[in-house]
Amino acid sequence: MKKHSIITVSRQFGSGGHEVGKRLAEELSYKFYDNELINLAAAASGLNKEVFVKSEEAKTLPEGSLLADRNNKKNDKIFAIKADVIKHIAERGNCVIVGRCADYILESWDTFDIFIHASEDSRIIGLMKKHTDWDEKTTRKHMKKNDKDRAEYYNYYTGREWGQAYNYALCLDSGMFGVDGCVRVIKDSIQYT
Amino acid sequence: MKKHSIITVSRQFGSGGHEVGKRLAEELSYKFYDNELINLAAAASGLNKEVFVKSEEAKTLPEGSLLADRNNKKNDKIFAIKADVIKHIAERGNCVIVGRCADYILESWDTFDIFIHASEDSRIIGLMKKHTDWDEKTTRKHMKKNDKDRAEYYNYYTGREWGQAYNYALCLDSGMFGVDGCVRVIKDSIQYT
Repeated sequence: MKKHSIITVSRQFGSGGHEVGKRLAEELSYKFYDNELINLAAAASGLNKEVFVKSEEAKTLPEGSLLADRNNKKNDKIFAIKADVIKHIAERGNCVIVGRCADYILESWDTFDIFIHASEDSRIIGLMKKHTDWDEKTTRKHMKKNDKDRAEYYNYYTGREWGQAYNYALCLDSGMFGVDGCVRVIKDSIQYT
Repeated sequence: MKKHSIITVSRQFGSGGHEVGKRLAEELSYKFYDNELINLAAAASGLNKEVFVKSEEAKTLPEGSLLADRNNKKNDKIFAIKADVIKHIAERGNCVIVGRCADYILESWDTFDIFIHASEDSRIIGLMKKHTDWDEKTTRKHMKKNDKDRAEYYNYYTGREWGQAYNYALCLDSGMFGVDGCVRVIKDSIQYT
C-alpha cells in the first residue's frame, strides 16, 4: 500500500469539507466515503439506515438512569459498527473518508488527517448559496446546532477535543483558500511528507 | 502593500516553528521577528530586556489581592508595549512575526496566520538534538512547562484557546512535514489565497 493511501477529512458544518474530500478523491483516483459509510454500516449490520443517521445527532445522556444507560449503550454499539466498516475500508487503502471520527478510529494506521474549517460569516454565505430556502437566522441556527453536535459527538467518542490542530497533519481555512485552493494545498503537501 | 505581506507564526515549544518562520522570511525576503521583538520593546519603552523575558513566563494571578492586582497590571502594561511594537512592525509589511499573540494583536489586519505543532515524541527528539545536555526526563519537563505557559499566556491575553485550528489559515504538523516541508507547503499555499 503506498504512503498516505488513507486520507481522513474532518470538517466544520458549511466549510466545504465534503467537497474538498470529494474533489481530492477524484484527483487522486481514490474511493470517496462520506454518507456512503452509513449505507455500508446498515448493510453490514442489517439495521435500518435511519438508526445510523439518528445516532449522529443523538445526545449522550448523563449516566445514572436506566434510560441513559440504554440510550448510550445503543449509540456505542452503532459507533462500533461504523468503526468496523471504516477499518474494513481502510484495509483496502486508496480512500478519502469524511467525518465519523475516522482520524481517531484509524489513529494507529498511517493516515493523513485533515481538518477543514472557516469563519462563521464565510460558512453562512456558503450555506445560504446551497440552501436557497434558508434565511440568515435559520442558517445560523443550523450552523450553531451542528457545530455543537459534532463537537459533542467527537469529544465523547475520542476523548480528544474537536478542532484542536494537534489531531491533524494539516488544518485549512477554506474561507481563505476556497475549495479549489484547499485541494491544491493538500495535494502539494502530501508530496512533502 | 502586497497580499499577505504580514505572516504570523505561532508554534508549540520544540516544533521547529522558529526555524520555519526564519526560513520562510529568508525565502520571501521578509524581515524576521522573534526574540528581536523583545529588544525592540525594551528600546521603545526604556525598560530592561529581562522585564519582557520574565513577563512571558509569569503567571497571571487570580484576582482578589493587592499582590495579584500589581502583578497583573504590570504584565498587562508589558503586553501593551509589545503589542504596540508588533503593530509598528506590521505597518511596514513584508515581515514574519513569531509568537507573542501577534495573530490576535493583528486580527483586524490582512495577515496570514500559521500554527506549527508536532507530537510530544517528535518534539522530544528535536529538543534533545538541540539541547545535548538534556536527558529525556529533563526535556519532557521543559516541554510540559512551556506548553502550559504558552497556553495560559495566549488564552489570558486573547480570550481564545491555544492550538484551536479556527484561529489560523494553516496549521501544520512539523513532525509529518519537517521544517523544509512546512516552508514549502506554506509558500505554495500563499499563492492559492
